[in-house]
Amino acid sequence: MKLTADAKGVFPIAPTPFFDDGAVDHASIDRMMDFYQACGATGLTVLGQLGEAPKLDFKESLDIASQVIGKAGGMPIVVGVSAPGFASMRSLTREVMDRGAAGVMIAPPNTLRTDDQIVTYYHQAVEAIGDDVPFVLQDYPLTFSVQMAPSVIRRIVTDLASCVMLKHEDWPGLEKISALRRFEAEGAMRHISILCGNNGLFLDYEMARGADGANTGYCFPDMLCDFVKWVGEGKTEAAHDLFDAHLPLLRYEQQPGVGLAVRKYVMMRRGILSSAAQRRPGGALTPAAKAEVDHLLTRLGKHDPRAKNLV
Amino acid sequence: MKLTADAKGVFPIAPTPFFDDGAVDHASIDRMMDFYQACGATGLTVLGQLGEAPKLDFKESLDIASQVIGKAGGMPIVVGVSAPGFASMRSLTREVMDRGAAGVMIAPPNTLRTDDQIVTYYHQAVEAIGDDVPFVLQDYPLTFSVQMAPSVIRRIVTDLASCVMLKHEDWPGLEKISALRRFEAEGAMRHISILCGNNGLFLDYEMARGADGANTGYCFPDMLCDFVKWVGEGKTEAAHDLFDAHLPLLRYEQQPGVGLAVRKYVMMRRGILSSAAQRRPGGALTPAAKAEVDHLLTRLGKHDPRAKNLV
Amino acid sequence: MKLTADAKGVFPIAPTPFFDDGAVDHASIDRMMDFYQACGATGLTVLGQLGEAPKLDFKESLDIASQVIGKAGGMPIVVGVSAPGFASMRSLTREVMDRGAAGVMIAPPNTLRTDDQIVTYYHQAVEAIGDDVPFVLQDYPLTFSVQMAPSVIRRIVTDLASCVMLKHEDWPGLEKISALRRFEAEGAMRHISILCGNNGLFLDYEMARGADGANTGYCFPDMLCDFVKWVGEGKTEAAHDLFDAHLPLLRYEQQPGVGLAVRKYVMMRRGILSSAAQRRPGGALTPAAKAEVDHLLTRLGKHDPRAKNLV
Amino acid sequence: MKLTADAKGVFPIAPTPFFDDGAVDHASIDRMMDFYQACGATGLTVLGQLGEAPKLDFKESLDIASQVIGKAGGMPIVVGVSAPGFASMRSLTREVMDRGAAGVMIAPPNTLRTDDQIVTYYHQAVEAIGDDVPFVLQDYPLTFSVQMAPSVIRRIVTDLASCVMLKHEDWPGLEKISALRRFEAEGAMRHISILCGNNGLFLDYEMARGADGANTGYCFPDMLCDFVKWVGEGKTEAAHDLFDAHLPLLRYEQQPGVGLAVRKYVMMRRGILSSAAQRRPGGALTPAAKAEVDHLLTRLGKHDPRAKNLV
Repeated sequence: MKLTADAKGVFPIAPTPFFDDGAVDHASIDRMMDFYQACGATGLTVLGQLGEAPKLDFKESLDIASQVIGKAGGMPIVVGVSAPGFASMRSLTREVMDRGAAGVMIAPPNTLRTDDQIVTYYHQAVEAIGDDVPFVLQDYPLTFSVQMAPSVIRRIVTDLASCVMLKHEDWPGLEKISALRRFEAEGAMRHISILCGNNGLFLDYEMARGADGANTGYCFPDMLCDFVKWVGEGKTEAAHDLFDAHLPLLRYEQQPGVGLAVRKYVMMRRGILSSAAQRRPGGALTPAAKAEVDHLLTRLGKHDPRAKNLV
Repeated sequence: MKLTADAKGVFPIAPTPFFDDGAVDHASIDRMMDFYQACGATGLTVLGQLGEAPKLDFKESLDIASQVIGKAGGMPIVVGVSAPGFASMRSLTREVMDRGAAGVMIAPPNTLRTDDQIVTYYHQAVEAIGDDVPFVLQDYPLTFSVQMAPSVIRRIVTDLASCVMLKHEDWPGLEKISALRRFEAEGAMRHISILCGNNGLFLDYEMARGADGANTGYCFPDMLCDFVKWVGEGKTEAAHDLFDAHLPLLRYEQQPGVGLAVRKYVMMRRGILSSAAQRRPGGALTPAAKAEVDHLLTRLGKHDPRAKNLV
Repeated sequence: MKLTADAKGVFPIAPTPFFDDGAVDHASIDRMMDFYQACGATGLTVLGQLGEAPKLDFKESLDIASQVIGKAGGMPIVVGVSAPGFASMRSLTREVMDRGAAGVMIAPPNTLRTDDQIVTYYHQAVEAIGDDVPFVLQDYPLTFSVQMAPSVIRRIVTDLASCVMLKHEDWPGLEKISALRRFEAEGAMRHISILCGNNGLFLDYEMARGADGANTGYCFPDMLCDFVKWVGEGKTEAAHDLFDAHLPLLRYEQQPGVGLAVRKYVMMRRGILSSAAQRRPGGALTPAAKAEVDHLLTRLGKHDPRAKNLV
Repeated sequence: MKLTADAKGVFPIAPTPFFDDGAVDHASIDRMMDFYQACGATGLTVLGQLGEAPKLDFKESLDIASQVIGKAGGMPIVVGVSAPGFASMRSLTREVMDRGAAGVMIAPPNTLRTDDQIVTYYHQAVEAIGDDVPFVLQDYPLTFSVQMAPSVIRRIVTDLASCVMLKHEDWPGLEKISALRRFEAEGAMRHISILCGNNGLFLDYEMARGADGANTGYCFPDMLCDFVKWVGEGKTEAAHDLFDAHLPLLRYEQQPGVGLAVRKYVMMRRGILSSAAQRRPGGALTPAAKAEVDHLLTRLGKHDPRAKNLV
């Protein structure tokens, strides 16, 4: 089952669980997969930047992808294959597609500047991985320093049929979603799935702008699933109430660098991961930061029972 | 009265009010000054980046600074004097200090990279403006692309006695405040005032880390003043409740580019500005964005009476 | 007399002469103007980045522009008006055009990324300065970090009739000149003048690609004038011989930062400037660097009599 | 035989020879190794950025490294192991050291900004590869956007005993070499080897500043070897004459992007490579560029017999 432009809902970005000694924690991966399915996730992305992919060797990456695909239970699995060279991108893509991945995600290298450079890069990437592999275009200027105008995304979508999804995490980005959906409405661009990243910081308004859901790693993916579901059911204000209750923690987790430590810590508190460890080099929460997260969880627990008794 | 390292509380960043035709709206400046004093602001910063300073000519800048200083009513007024060359920085500094400014704010040019380059730049700036002019060090890597390690800030503070305040808006930045206060506790750095910018996005935890308050332009400076006051009085949870109620709007306003349009729109709704206009080139809210801000205000009005009946 | 798209030859970039105490050295400006005319320069650019424009206050800038225009003797004078805001850009442009400047030069701010952002910026700049003021588009990615694809330059030229010249200093840039001239040959872009900067490092091949000459500050503008003239006369190999003899020094002077110190030092040795001083902050040659320049001049003197007996 | 801080002379950066169809051309590798030894090279670097390393898969990289090491004939072989993650860096390092490499070269990721970030990165890299592996610190801000002050290099050298060589390609960089050698003279830093990159553009003066030779890929490494040898023998002016004759071509080859195409084209003309092909994506010379290189070779042939009859 391959990824298509009709994808909707929530595709969590999975962290890679490690033991304190840095070994991959396969039991936690199984638990995490059960958890994501229980949440109502409609798909899953692994081996992204926040999955600590660059700290894994090739064999480890494949083992993790295989395990996740094996436990997918029908969810399409997207694998991050961004790499400094097309040789590695191709090898990893072929291996994971053979194992049953639904598609791959490709971020732009941070040296790209002009519109033409960006479009050319994705042409070359598709030439490398094959045009039969569905891919997700990752638009995350804050991290990659590559700015894609809506017209650039349209060129990529128009030129490359295998581009089926946008991981939208430009900031500010609400007008970009509107611009892309306007292109579609005018018949100037074919439809693609738009799932929102950036930890969901603007998901409360992105849905109304035309997004299809979320593709991000917030430590309460169940909240993201509820939010998307409730919006679909017209329970807008209840959805906003839930979102706003989570916003203090969500914003805290969205900090670059420390964010992953927060995410793993909360997922450990929730019983999903056995450890919050990151492989080296990786940040740990200071005692002050840990106290802040505990405080955020305590306050969240007043509004969302899932956050109760975690501290 | 000059700015000192003992500054505390809230120094709002003032926008520059314009009429729809681009002319400076001096009546709104007077209203704004009354408003800031009623809020409990302890100081004020004008002619910053979000004050549209680069769109003003020299005479306009001085007129605005003069009017603000004249209406300061005892609040110290800090003037942004960042400029591409030291000649302009010096001229503007001298003019505003002669008119009664309390100090100036200097951001680093975005070409600086190494620690030494940053420290050298501030040495040269002080040589240009004179070491009798208190200055605020603006640390805002997201906008200026200049990253100052805590040790670099310490070098600047140690070398340059006229550095009395840090406008802290690194992101993530909580550990940086802790690091600087640790230097002070260890006797390794003299005390400076730390006021937080970045629209106050992390003010809820920055105070506990050692910040002295806020120096930012959020459209409800009265909330920032309450928050800082309540934290000082030990009403921590009430302060967090208030902050959290504002966080959805505060986060929305913190978006680069569109943020200033949000701020001016809300300040117009609040009766402070007669128009939300920006001088060209400047963004306006799309109808969709305006509806989102209205929605945010409506929801906020349920928690904070100051946001009621604004839409 | 306004700048047109037919400009050809060599427009030196003039340094600003200072005395050792930092005062503007007006006598040297007069000598410099005589020198440029004797060289065969066909125009002149003042108040550029390497003219230390950011270190001048507004009145000084106008005084220098006035003096240069008064001594122009028929040469069109282009004035650098790049500024962080359109208000300053407009004021300076109006003042210098009133005094008889032929046009202005505008560099892009280093925050621009996408094609649309670049094109929009020049639209706004023209709106600010007026569409009756001829302007030079400066394309210097190495310094400004803004990359303009040939198609972007074409959009600017097509949209804005007052864009009459490209200061071409992309690197590598030979194919860009070919691409632009191909657009013209195909009728896809109107003709503009292309003068080359980047200290002339590739002028030996830029002429054959379609450039109209040089617009740069190398300390032997007389060599640049000879080179352009000889190429025009078909004396290609003699022109290359002359260029190659200068290349070791030219390359040395092209270094960022130290380059201006080299340029002023040699112009002092040549009797044009009374001092090699830069206004603070500015680099001076170390004894080792001075010895290297002396060595380069001595070696150059064997091939070009103008470099003899300067050390 | 491991790389030490006493390394001197010329370590060419080897390109990776491909056939026109993109397959690795092992016969050309053998010819290239014979050629480098005949030139007088004292070492060799493979799998660098300009060796198209990111276009090779892991097995190809190891095969090439093995072949080069097998043909080294006593020359120490340095292998580029820069990678986005420490896991890949470690794997590649271990494999090539097992096969007999003399050391590895590590470039900084282009996200590093502050002094501390740079120093920390190299600590982590050494932790990953092991402190028994000699490494070359690559300082190339033009490509990597990472600026290392001399004091940062000193910290790395002082903290990490396995740092034995600096590949110096800062620009401008002459004063940096002087600063480092001054540290050594003052006893403030232990001695390291400094070999110069940046295509040797300033090699003519870098030797006198204290460099030990060159570590770059210019298509006439034999000229670089002669230059370093002659300087060592006191034939300074003859060395400069030879260097200056090559400077027009050397500067042309130093252009980013197109440079590698020039290098491979000339090495093919010289009978070393069977093809000038780059693996995709890679630039090819346009007919205009090819004519320019031919012209440069023809002119060089008048001064250096090695460039005769190549066109």
